[in-house]
Amino acid sequence: MTVPVLSSLTSTFTRLYRYAHLASMASWDQAAMMPANGNEARSAALAELQVLMHQTLTSAELGAQFRAAAGEASLDASEQASLREMRRPWQQATLLPERLVEAQSLAQSRCEHAWRSQRKGNDWSGFLLNFREVVTLARDEAKRLSDARGCSCYDALMDKYEPGMRSSDIERIFGDVKGWLPELIRQAMEKQANEAVLLPRGPFPIDRQRALGVEVMTLLGFDFEAGRLDVSTHPFCGGVAEDVRITTRYNEDDFMRSLMGIVHETGHARYEQNLPRDWVHLPVGQARSMGIHESQSLSFEMQLGRSPQFLALIAPLVQKHLGQQAAFEATNLAALFTRVQPGFIRVDADELTYPAHVILRYEIERALMDGEIEAEDIPALWDEKMMAYLGVDTRGNFQDGCLQDIHWPCGSFGYFPSYTLGSMNAAQFFAEIRNEQPELDAQVLAGNLSPVFTWLEQHVWRQASRWETPELMLRATGEPLNPAHFRRHLERRYLGA
Amino acid sequence: MTVPVLSSLTSTFTRLYRYAHLASMASWDQAAMMPANGNEARSAALAELQVLMHQTLTSAELGAQFRAAAGEASLDASEQASLREMRRPWQQATLLPERLVEAQSLAQSRCEHAWRSQRKGNDWSGFLLNFREVVTLARDEAKRLSDARGCSCYDALMDKYEPGMRSSDIERIFGDVKGWLPELIRQAMEKQANEAVLLPRGPFPIDRQRALGVEVMTLLGFDFEAGRLDVSTHPFCGGVAEDVRITTRYNEDDFMRSLMGIVHETGHARYEQNLPRDWVHLPVGQARSMGIHESQSLSFEMQLGRSPQFLALIAPLVQKHLGQQAAFEATNLAALFTRVQPGFIRVDADELTYPAHVILRYEIERALMDGEIEAEDIPALWDEKMMAYLGVDTRGNFQDGCLQDIHWPCGSFGYFPSYTLGSMNAAQFFAEIRNEQPELDAQVLAGNLSPVFTWLEQHVWRQASRWETPELMLRATGEPLNPAHFRRHLERRYLGA
Repeated sequence: MTVPVLSSLTSTFTRLYRYAHLASMASWDQAAMMPANGNEARSAALAELQVLMHQTLTSAELGAQFRAAAGEASLDASEQASLREMRRPWQQATLLPERLVEAQSLAQSRCEHAWRSQRKGNDWSGFLLNFREVVTLARDEAKRLSDARGCSCYDALMDKYEPGMRSSDIERIFGDVKGWLPELIRQAMEKQANEAVLLPRGPFPIDRQRALGVEVMTLLGFDFEAGRLDVSTHPFCGGVAEDVRITTRYNEDDFMRSLMGIVHETGHARYEQNLPRDWVHLPVGQARSMGIHESQSLSFEMQLGRSPQFLALIAPLVQKHLGQQAAFEATNLAALFTRVQPGFIRVDADELTYPAHVILRYEIERALMDGEIEAEDIPALWDEKMMAYLGVDTRGNFQDGCLQDIHWPCGSFGYFPSYTLGSMNAAQFFAEIRNEQPELDAQVLAGNLSPVFTWLEQHVWRQASRWETPELMLRATGEPLNPAHFRRHLERRYLGA
Repeated sequence: MTVPVLSSLTSTFTRLYRYAHLASMASWDQAAMMPANGNEARSAALAELQVLMHQTLTSAELGAQFRAAAGEASLDASEQASLREMRRPWQQATLLPERLVEAQSLAQSRCEHAWRSQRKGNDWSGFLLNFREVVTLARDEAKRLSDARGCSCYDALMDKYEPGMRSSDIERIFGDVKGWLPELIRQAMEKQANEAVLLPRGPFPIDRQRALGVEVMTLLGFDFEAGRLDVSTHPFCGGVAEDVRITTRYNEDDFMRSLMGIVHETGHARYEQNLPRDWVHLPVGQARSMGIHESQSLSFEMQLGRSPQFLALIAPLVQKHLGQQAAFEATNLAALFTRVQPGFIRVDADELTYPAHVILRYEIERALMDGEIEAEDIPALWDEKMMAYLGVDTRGNFQDGCLQDIHWPCGSFGYFPSYTLGSMNAAQFFAEIRNEQPELDAQVLAGNLSPVFTWLEQHVWRQASRWETPELMLRATGEPLNPAHFRRHLERRYLGA
């Protein structure tokens, strides 16, 4: 796609892409490499860069370029899509004053950095000292965005991650899930209570876990000439499309979490590594939304990674790196990786209880941003909802409760729904892949993963942000988002229904 | 130091410091972490940042701030020093057009990245394809700077690393060295020919070499809460003062190079880690010059690190990490680390032959920048000078000859003299430290390194760029640069004279 009539806009957004490269790498380093005392200078440098990017987006020059483009009659469909995607960050930036952008960057860096040790120390009241400022500034941002757009404060924030999505949609979708999920969890646990599962015996040395992870990443097509695997407290996929950095965390007693964490982040990574290289410097060439991004990680982790066929495929690799154990037989691995057990931690949750963790967070952060509760109210609400949805008692346990996630310390309110939207998108994609490839399970078992990669590449990766999310789903699967695929996938896998 | 009347300048230079933070970290990552295919996007991002920094330095706004400061009558001495150091990068930037700055950044990134594999492949002609552009652009830069300053082209470039130093000074100093060094090398080798030395038997596993390096860094006062040790092809000290990143490279057959490389870079690191924190964001709070920077690495590596007392101190650490060998006895280590043997590689050279490597490079790069030779002429000159100065035959061996260093691919012409100036500064510092602490050797042997650290901290690290180099030397040692200290140090160590 060339967009000659948009050349001055393209030039400005190319510059912004390069600034974003520096921000992304400095943030990756902050999480994966930086020693503790480097944080103050790093935060100042990142805030300066946020201010620069904001100044670039709100410059009079860029406004004039958009006005000139609006008068341009000859734009073809792809140029119009590119213009649409450039407008999105521009319109958002022009609604926010520079001092707010800088204050948010600094407050979030401070809160996130302190959170790393406060979480370990179970120190909710210490956390609150920084977190109140993060909440105040996020509400200020939300108010400004919502006033201009005529939506709720929370919706204005969620729109940054999932453009066009509204709480009313989420309430409908999550309301439906809340109707059937508890009973499905109960039935699955009842069914599994009668199934014998062998538990792997550790320890599993970290260097062997890493070697296993690297081999599985290779199997999944990760390009190590254009990316890395490292360690961080909170696993993530970062870097830039040309150099994708994924992280995991290791526990010598448990190889399953790091392994599935790696499979998950590799899904994110392949999306980034396969974005259309010719327009990756423009917003239209970048990932569609976080719900689509999570659909890729969850396609890898849930649809593919926890399937009995994939686990049979990698069982020999597990045995090669971690030694021979009866627990590493394919059928036992399949049982282990689909074990349902309500627990404290979202990122360690099984596929079935995971949506409950998301719904709880969504309900709390929506109320917080819409001004119905205050930061102080979070622990009590957390305790109440964890008990109601999962029967888990989190009272006094902030570390494994409301302090467990990096999102809120970073001010990323409105992100959580993307996980469950991602699960639903992934289930819908795989329903369509199975439609087109009835022999998919046999192919995966035989080590041929290319049908999955080819389909995702064609329908998701190479499409980038060419289409808005509903149209992307329609073009890929023939229907808009349909949560029924997710429910059917869970019932089939966990009840054999 | 507060500089209220300079507040607008201070604010601009604080912003520049944060941009430099991002550039430094992205460059460290490029050398130590980045996968190969990330280079194009990284180079574009770094060039964009160079352009931004250049625009900031050449803005009309900054010019007006300097004019206002010039009319300010009330500046005290420290404010005048701060103003002087801010003027230096400003005046240099205003002499260079933005397109040249961007072209240099891109050409140097391209040449350096290709050099990494071309060096391994001994591919001089491939290297030349990129290198000619680097030379052309460096000459363009040098011409513009020299026209304005009334010095030679080479001097204009050397001034970036060693402000105020001129080729006429270097010719005098290096001319003196060339007068006595060959005979000193000959005598030292003759003396050592009669001394038995046990060679260590490898292999030395990399993780054990690293653990030894970390323990020696700790002994040398490196702050791991504000820095890291990693691996790169060409060892360096990078990062920022608040987060210093040093690198080394390991060879399983040879622990001595990585160990002394680590000691060397730790010297650079302690200078950075101990710059005055209150004004580290301003040019006056940053390292004085590269000749002073190298004096710190060489104080650590040569004056301290290769002394018999320091080697006796770390002999037990070597044995702890690499096992028991007779070769690891203190006296044998002292003999090993002062062994004189002309060789191909500058960074692996012993203390005595090292200046010959520097003089050779200086003579070639001065002629290249002053237009007396072309890039094509380098290999023949290299061969001729290596044979004349060190009796080493480099014909056809570009890999271990003129392709061995990162400086020229990066366009850093004028840097090399800093190494030997650094050796001389270090010898002069230690002569003064011994004056003040006659018992220094006994203290080092007893593990008390604080007399060295305290002296360097007081006379070098905390002084930053408060004084120009000649005044720094005078204040620290009571005399200007006096190369006689270097000769005396070498004669004492290598001839026992």
